[in-house]
Amino acid sequence: MQTSDEVDYVSGRTRLFGIVGHPIAQVRSPEMFTAEFRRRGVDAILVPLHVLPEHFDAVMPQLQRLQNLGGLVFTIPYKAQACALAEVLGAQAQAVGAINALAKAADGRWRGDIFDGLGCVEAFRRRSISFAGKRVMLLGAGGAGSAIAVAIGGERPAALRIYDVDAARADALVRKVIHASPGVEATVGAPTASGVDILLNAAPVGMLGDARMPFEVATLPRELVVFDAIVKPERTPLLALAESCGCTTIYGREMMHGQISRMTDFFLA
Amino acid sequence: MQTSDEVDYVSGRTRLFGIVGHPIAQVRSPEMFTAEFRRRGVDAILVPLHVLPEHFDAVMPQLQRLQNLGGLVFTIPYKAQACALAEVLGAQAQAVGAINALAKAADGRWRGDIFDGLGCVEAFRRRSISFAGKRVMLLGAGGAGSAIAVAIGGERPAALRIYDVDAARADALVRKVIHASPGVEATVGAPTASGVDILLNAAPVGMLGDARMPFEVATLPRELVVFDAIVKPERTPLLALAESCGCTTIYGREMMHGQISRMTDFFLA
Repeated sequence: MQTSDEVDYVSGRTRLFGIVGHPIAQVRSPEMFTAEFRRRGVDAILVPLHVLPEHFDAVMPQLQRLQNLGGLVFTIPYKAQACALAEVLGAQAQAVGAINALAKAADGRWRGDIFDGLGCVEAFRRRSISFAGKRVMLLGAGGAGSAIAVAIGGERPAALRIYDVDAARADALVRKVIHASPGVEATVGAPTASGVDILLNAAPVGMLGDARMPFEVATLPRELVVFDAIVKPERTPLLALAESCGCTTIYGREMMHGQISRMTDFFLA
Repeated sequence: MQTSDEVDYVSGRTRLFGIVGHPIAQVRSPEMFTAEFRRRGVDAILVPLHVLPEHFDAVMPQLQRLQNLGGLVFTIPYKAQACALAEVLGAQAQAVGAINALAKAADGRWRGDIFDGLGCVEAFRRRSISFAGKRVMLLGAGGAGSAIAVAIGGERPAALRIYDVDAARADALVRKVIHASPGVEATVGAPTASGVDILLNAAPVGMLGDARMPFEVATLPRELVVFDAIVKPERTPLLALAESCGCTTIYGREMMHGQISRMTDFFLA
């Protein structure tokens, strides 16, 4: 029964999902996943859950006890840390060492996996751009960067060069990529746009009001394809420069679209 | 920016509220509070949070750490237990020893208070029925029953008789009522509809599929006013009997309406 003093999109029966991050205001998952649930006729909602880093380890196992919680999305800075919350890890998550989705399965067990990398590859495929034989430069070896690197490693690039402000983290990711895709030419290297076909940013630099570029660069070659995993703003400083230089650009939003459907399958399985 | 693949009622900026109970499917707060937030132009949502009794003490303090959580509503069986989560208790909550609302104040402190009793009195006032000089029988001395008893005690009834399956709980409530409203004639007594002007049910008997009456009774005097605090179903077995006997009936939904506005003020203060 629907009366004028009620909304029709949440009730006591609504299955709850959340996105956990810090900060949280910039995330797009609530409006996008909730729309996907509605399209599928499922009474569910995904809400923002702002957890501070110093609270994460204590808060998360208790949140998982909410009986009507169906699953969680993880964003910066929790994708690696969230692995510990899963009882079963998917293949992609095992290679990456991070998850961005945690779903309560029908048997009550928590399954974790990561979909960022597959979403990025899917975004390129939809633009008819292949990674095969390309020289790829990736900035950022955190949760999203790791998933992207592992997924691209499986696409047979000519070379994959990885940079992170934390050199040890970049080095560890190179080893993960080679382990998951033996024979791929993956290396750690300083950020550059020269001798590169595809430049990908997966570092948080350029988020929200941050006007900085992920590395010092004043111009980009016109032939370069530039991707930024950041979804807010949609047009990051890096993408703005790329467009002013005539480059092909691919937005974080496109990667997100590819992920939404796969992750919703995972949540509702 | 609103596109067709997004909903417009939840985003990363949405302030989160919840209702905590066991069971949870029957609650009406999500659709009603969320509608009230919208009417006031506030970007906020209230979602169901199903917490099991054996998890309550561990889960709740961690839930309170969610940075975008603005407040919580408590329902059966948590109204008394939730007092411990408040740093500051309102006057009504102190008299009752229970809360149904916990709000994070601007200074970050958690304030608790209870609005059930005031909502019940308000529902009667809107029907132009006063408790003053009336003989009142109350069934149920739990969280809602306690709040209703304390609020009615302040309305100068001729007598307030209280029944609960747990006799000690009924006795403790009588003492609370007398402490809060010295001189009121409050007693513990078996459930009856004879010699009574107003009969109120605040026990969970008759909820959801429960076809039982809160006490053994086959007919009710036509002059009796009958109220039931249960909101689902709206027309409980007790209210159905009362209507078949020609009694005036007041629904749990009417009490809830009175509370929504006051509690929303409390949440957004």
